[in-house]
Amino acid sequence: MLPPADSLAVLRAAVLAFRDARDWRQFHNLKNLIVSLNLEAAELLELTQWQRDEEVEALPADPVRREALADECADVLLYLLLIAEQAKIDLLAAAQAKLVKNAAKYPVDKARGSRAKYVDLS
Amino acid sequence: MLPPADSLAVLRAAVLAFRDARDWRQFHNLKNLIVSLNLEAAELLELTQWQRDEEVEALPADPVRREALADECADVLLYLLLIAEQAKIDLLAAAQAKLVKNAAKYPVDKARGSRAKYVDLS
Amino acid sequence: MLPPADSLAVLRAAVLAFRDARDWRQFHNLKNLIVSLNLEAAELLELTQWQRDEEVEALPADPVRREALADECADVLLYLLLIAEQAKIDLLAAAQAKLVKNAAKYPVDKARGSRAKYVDLS
Amino acid sequence: MLPPADSLAVLRAAVLAFRDARDWRQFHNLKNLIVSLNLEAAELLELTQWQRDEEVEALPADPVRREALADECADVLLYLLLIAEQAKIDLLAAAQAKLVKNAAKYPVDKARGSRAKYVDLS
Repeated sequence: MLPPADSLAVLRAAVLAFRDARDWRQFHNLKNLIVSLNLEAAELLELTQWQRDEEVEALPADPVRREALADECADVLLYLLLIAEQAKIDLLAAAQAKLVKNAAKYPVDKARGSRAKYVDLS
Repeated sequence: MLPPADSLAVLRAAVLAFRDARDWRQFHNLKNLIVSLNLEAAELLELTQWQRDEEVEALPADPVRREALADECADVLLYLLLIAEQAKIDLLAAAQAKLVKNAAKYPVDKARGSRAKYVDLS
Repeated sequence: MLPPADSLAVLRAAVLAFRDARDWRQFHNLKNLIVSLNLEAAELLELTQWQRDEEVEALPADPVRREALADECADVLLYLLLIAEQAKIDLLAAAQAKLVKNAAKYPVDKARGSRAKYVDLS
Repeated sequence: MLPPADSLAVLRAAVLAFRDARDWRQFHNLKNLIVSLNLEAAELLELTQWQRDEEVEALPADPVRREALADECADVLLYLLLIAEQAKIDLLAAAQAKLVKNAAKYPVDKARGSRAKYVDLS
């Protein structure tokens, strides 16, 4: 039986097939993939350039800009999957584990309503 | 019936619960979340600093550095989920749609074995 | 006679002497220098994390945070000098030339009071 | 008497005149300028995308790519000047001061030939 069509595993298989159909594995060393993820993150940031906080907040209400936002988020996720595959990282397990670490760094009673960095929490 | 424990939807629920337990929604405007995703991408990049391509390639073989890599990938994914939630973007659907767009920009017969940008493909 | 103590040429000589005293030229390939400049830019960005526009605007009024800002700006400039030296670029001449190009892309009569990207100016 | 035509002060005056002729000061809050500097740093990084270390090293030998490199370095410097002006930072003095701090963090006898981060130097 196949996993549900909306799972991350299905997407992962699709992006690997995309890469291999184009014979791009040869360019995908880990450093280049991490550089590329940073470039996609910057394209996401570019959607906010010269805009005040409130204008960025209103961005998803505009269908054209919302699609641009979705596209850039998508590119970040696709590179994340390629990096995880190369480094043999289980992305979902890593994120669950990191959330547990973050919870220890930011205990609810100390971090509640505060944006201090964990080293500055008291 | 619950979705499988390894699904992105479960992780999404967990990160939202983490945020709300700390009352952090108030700091999470879209611009700040996008800035934070960029900072996490930079932390991922920092793991490659001063290293040659081959050294980065060997990074996952070292358990300590591999965990650092997994942690930074995790942080990027967690912010991606927070951004998607705020902007009402279905991340998996967006990534599937983007892969279709990328396939049109990089047709297999032209892009095979080439790392040219799509505007330069001929 | 020495050039004036405040010139960019003096700073450039100082950063090269700093590098060579530590025998760091061997790690400074161009790709690594560009990655490092990006990491310093991210540290500058980190000073704005979780803050609203107005809070960032008020940042220089706080001496501690203003020094942090000055430090990160300094690191970006130091890497810029190292990159320029490696690539044999005259930084000041390059910036003067780029300002001329930017003036052509953004003619005063069209760009005045507008934050549209040059491709969208009409 | 004018400062020498190649000084940073001349460039600073030129970029402020450029900004003011277009009435762009209104968009230049500090957060936006820092975001923009990060975007220019990413454009510099993009020139290295999908290339191995040696290929990036050879980049300045190609006049077209070298000009692209010079242009992106220039844009980073121009934003640095705008940020410094807004935050009332003397860029050259800040960089001289940071070099002194870096020298204390990386003493020659410990840092010589090592690329360890200062917290890991022993």
